[in-house]
Amino acid sequence: MSILVVGSVAFDGIKTPSGKVDRCLGGSATYFSLAASFFTDVRVVAVVGDDFTAEDEAVMVKRGVDISGLQRAKGKTFFWRGEYGENMNEAKTLSTDLNVFETFNPQIPPQYLDSDYLFLANIDPVLQSSVRKQMSKAQLVGGDTMNYWITGKAAELAETLKGIDVLLINDNEARMLGKTSSLPRAAQKILAHGPRVLVIKHGEYGATAFFKEAGLHPFRAPALPIEEVVDPTGAGDCFAGGFMGYIAGQTELNREVFKRAMFYGGVMGSFAVEQFGTQRFSDLSRGEIDARFELFRELSHLD
Amino acid sequence: MSILVVGSVAFDGIKTPSGKVDRCLGGSATYFSLAASFFTDVRVVAVVGDDFTAEDEAVMVKRGVDISGLQRAKGKTFFWRGEYGENMNEAKTLSTDLNVFETFNPQIPPQYLDSDYLFLANIDPVLQSSVRKQMSKAQLVGGDTMNYWITGKAAELAETLKGIDVLLINDNEARMLGKTSSLPRAAQKILAHGPRVLVIKHGEYGATAFFKEAGLHPFRAPALPIEEVVDPTGAGDCFAGGFMGYIAGQTELNREVFKRAMFYGGVMGSFAVEQFGTQRFSDLSRGEIDARFELFRELSHLD
Repeated sequence: MSILVVGSVAFDGIKTPSGKVDRCLGGSATYFSLAASFFTDVRVVAVVGDDFTAEDEAVMVKRGVDISGLQRAKGKTFFWRGEYGENMNEAKTLSTDLNVFETFNPQIPPQYLDSDYLFLANIDPVLQSSVRKQMSKAQLVGGDTMNYWITGKAAELAETLKGIDVLLINDNEARMLGKTSSLPRAAQKILAHGPRVLVIKHGEYGATAFFKEAGLHPFRAPALPIEEVVDPTGAGDCFAGGFMGYIAGQTELNREVFKRAMFYGGVMGSFAVEQFGTQRFSDLSRGEIDARFELFRELSHLD
Repeated sequence: MSILVVGSVAFDGIKTPSGKVDRCLGGSATYFSLAASFFTDVRVVAVVGDDFTAEDEAVMVKRGVDISGLQRAKGKTFFWRGEYGENMNEAKTLSTDLNVFETFNPQIPPQYLDSDYLFLANIDPVLQSSVRKQMSKAQLVGGDTMNYWITGKAAELAETLKGIDVLLINDNEARMLGKTSSLPRAAQKILAHGPRVLVIKHGEYGATAFFKEAGLHPFRAPALPIEEVVDPTGAGDCFAGGFMGYIAGQTELNREVFKRAMFYGGVMGSFAVEQFGTQRFSDLSRGEIDARFELFRELSHLD
């Protein structure tokens, strides 16, 4: 089945304790697409400027991602520059040049309207709601957000959350959105106002899914202990891509599929951080992915 | 089989967002003993003052813990007063009155010398080494330490670590001891200088075991998402008690027993935080423990 992702395609300048790159392909929709492309058909809506080259396109095209919905605008592509210190869980933003992204108004092209799954990557909740309306037939909608929208557009975000089935955010975002430091309590509050499922990503400690349905226990997936996190940028988007992509690639969605999707999310996040930018996905194989899935099982399962 | 723990028996004054207690039984050896007592025979060496009453004794005695090695000294029992804010992973120490603990010199009584297992709870590494020498026949030695000794008695601690098979410490202690923010790298460095196994406790995110033996993957155990952590004091000691106690209660130690011990560690830690002090253990049953063990499995296992 097919999944549509709407979000950002960007260039990033990144510095980490492992090194630096002045300009590499990035953006939430890019990372999501690449990770999801190993499991299902992926379509992208985002906006790029006239500095976006055929070589940049090729990164997604080579992975079979349908980029016919990529909007072209006059000007430069969104550029983010950031730095990570010893604490790899938090980037220090050095500069954000929104460029063509500033006036991004996502229009879903006709050929994408039949997409079975939808992922609303981290963009303005007003735009997320607009996309959600255009994609009324999607059978499952995933979404992401960030502190900037949680504090700056709380009412709009609350509206957006009503249209999202599975929200994927990190620890700090969950605490901020749920207004409590207790993650289980934050989850309860968030689930009361929208999504049926909340997946909280804990970085190097894995992720936990909480369910609105009464009596359903949470589910925890591990993360791989990684010696050298070269570049954590995009790991959360790759988790979402692996998670949603795996679900979209199955014929039905049951609890076991959901649990495996949590594992595949962690697996794709673990690959993302091994190299700068999207580099690790250029030669990754499904065989490597499934081998790591088995490693995740071995890491965390009793006999 | 039997396990001996050497550490502190104390009184605590604790304040958390859930409430406060002015004085309750605490100390690393107390928490460890109670948690381990559900799995195996436990013996304690620690020191208490003349304010330690029959009622205090009864907490451990009722759980079948052998306290014939509890030393009595003139003066008051070790008293710790602390407070937790929203971040339950870190206590703010308000006062530490070492009292009789200041001159504690652990002597292992003859009836304890045949203990099969030994746990060196968090005390001065010089005392830990002294106990280790007295217990030369122990077939497996576990140990704990803290930032105070890592920075203040580095050389003595390095010596102690050579006599410890399984070291159980938390994230911050591992980073401090391994001198790197990467936990897998910290683990490598720590394992190179002593223990065969390093268990790093991640609080609400579970725990990871790293092994010195080449080719052995780490193992991750989950923690229970708990809505209201009433009092986190002693959770780490209860993890150690569940972990070591379970191992000591089995006839052989293989990889599967080790993995289950990691789960039982998490289980006992999860009970510890539900009530103030050691209260939760007064009416806990093995049935509840095993039910929670199954919940941990359900929370984290694929079919």
